[in-house]
Amino acid sequence: MTDIITLTGLVATPPRHLITSEGLPIASFRLASTQRRYDRREAKWVDGETNWYTVTAFRQLAMNISASISKGDRVVVTGRLRIRDWTSAEKTGTNIEVDADSIGHDLAWGTASFTRNIVNSA
Amino acid sequence: MTDIITLTGLVATPPRHLITSEGLPIASFRLASTQRRYDRREAKWVDGETNWYTVTAFRQLAMNISASISKGDRVVVTGRLRIRDWTSAEKTGTNIEVDADSIGHDLAWGTASFTRNIVNSA
Amino acid sequence: MTDIITLTGLVATPPRHLITSEGLPIASFRLASTQRRYDRREAKWVDGETNWYTVTAFRQLAMNISASISKGDRVVVTGRLRIRDWTSAEKTGTNIEVDADSIGHDLAWGTASFTRNIVNSA
Amino acid sequence: MTDIITLTGLVATPPRHLITSEGLPIASFRLASTQRRYDRREAKWVDGETNWYTVTAFRQLAMNISASISKGDRVVVTGRLRIRDWTSAEKTGTNIEVDADSIGHDLAWGTASFTRNIVNSA
Repeated sequence: MTDIITLTGLVATPPRHLITSEGLPIASFRLASTQRRYDRREAKWVDGETNWYTVTAFRQLAMNISASISKGDRVVVTGRLRIRDWTSAEKTGTNIEVDADSIGHDLAWGTASFTRNIVNSA
Repeated sequence: MTDIITLTGLVATPPRHLITSEGLPIASFRLASTQRRYDRREAKWVDGETNWYTVTAFRQLAMNISASISKGDRVVVTGRLRIRDWTSAEKTGTNIEVDADSIGHDLAWGTASFTRNIVNSA
Repeated sequence: MTDIITLTGLVATPPRHLITSEGLPIASFRLASTQRRYDRREAKWVDGETNWYTVTAFRQLAMNISASISKGDRVVVTGRLRIRDWTSAEKTGTNIEVDADSIGHDLAWGTASFTRNIVNSA
Repeated sequence: MTDIITLTGLVATPPRHLITSEGLPIASFRLASTQRRYDRREAKWVDGETNWYTVTAFRQLAMNISASISKGDRVVVTGRLRIRDWTSAEKTGTNIEVDADSIGHDLAWGTASFTRNIVNSA
């Protein structure tokens, strides 16, 4: 049950889509989550710092992201956090990934019309 | 930071909408969240028990729910849990409410097209 | 992954302990979680409303609660929420239960000395 | 409300303590959170991959960590995730920090005796 996280934020890159040789659909995009905090001196809510994540989805969720999500959309995401170090020929780094269970457009920021899949593979 | 919860489930009633005398838009609906668990004997995922919540939203989120959510939709909701006892003339009961920060259609179950509000009041 | 919640609060009843006829240890207690909110008019943090939960634990966690937790302790709890209606001869009600994965004394409120179990059954 | 996370895991380094020139106590340690997953082929629970975090605490919580937590302890932590890139003379990297609200010894793994602070500063 641990390492579960829920995020709201901005889709910062066009979602990428691929299908593995085994036929597994995968979608991923970068998400910018900017925290809001109450500034007591200014007596108003202000933007805090931004966390960046790579959101990854599989199967039906991946296919529906392809049909539904664009760069600039506001979304809510829930899933499991995965922190992975990587090494290439010249560089090293850390990838902060969220393996998504559910993603939706955040209705705090706009309206949406929804069409259920005929068959759900979940 | 406590009592925060994220839910996925089925919108079980048509959303109700009202505007207070002070002009505050409010929307609410009943949400059925059915847990999935792995049955080792059957070696497959099965439906577990169902939790019922009253999801409540205010301001811009309430207005966008009116324009976007119908009974039968699958959604993801994040917000703060509020447990309240109530008494009427003849009965008592307990209401389990989620004061929603964000709500979206769950793209694990279908596709959606999103239109951002021109001005966001959040 | 849904219906997971983390709570901090006050242990409001002495933990009850029992062992089922199958030998399963169970512990439970009532938890009061009082939310803190920033009152802008008063320009300070104040107590908000209180949510009441029944926290339930099984196996090794139940046994360690018996040896460790008393009424009045401050704790942090993470687990799965279960909402159940009940009926007795004369009354009906709703029980809001947290099926705990982990519980610890909240070190924001005091100090603790910890002794690991020789064998862990988790 | 976003970027909130709850973790359970192993304290992997001795907690470090310092007091800023303004008198603010800070404590931090590395936490290894190893996910458990059910292996259907083996029909048993196995260790999954490990996420590494830097857990940071301030004020009273920091002081109580100094008095209570050692390398090798099992803990439960809840707080806000902060992802920060850093650059030194020769290297760059990413730090995944949890700004803790509450920390406790995980009673799934052992017993604890708790002493409340006389005055709580939270």
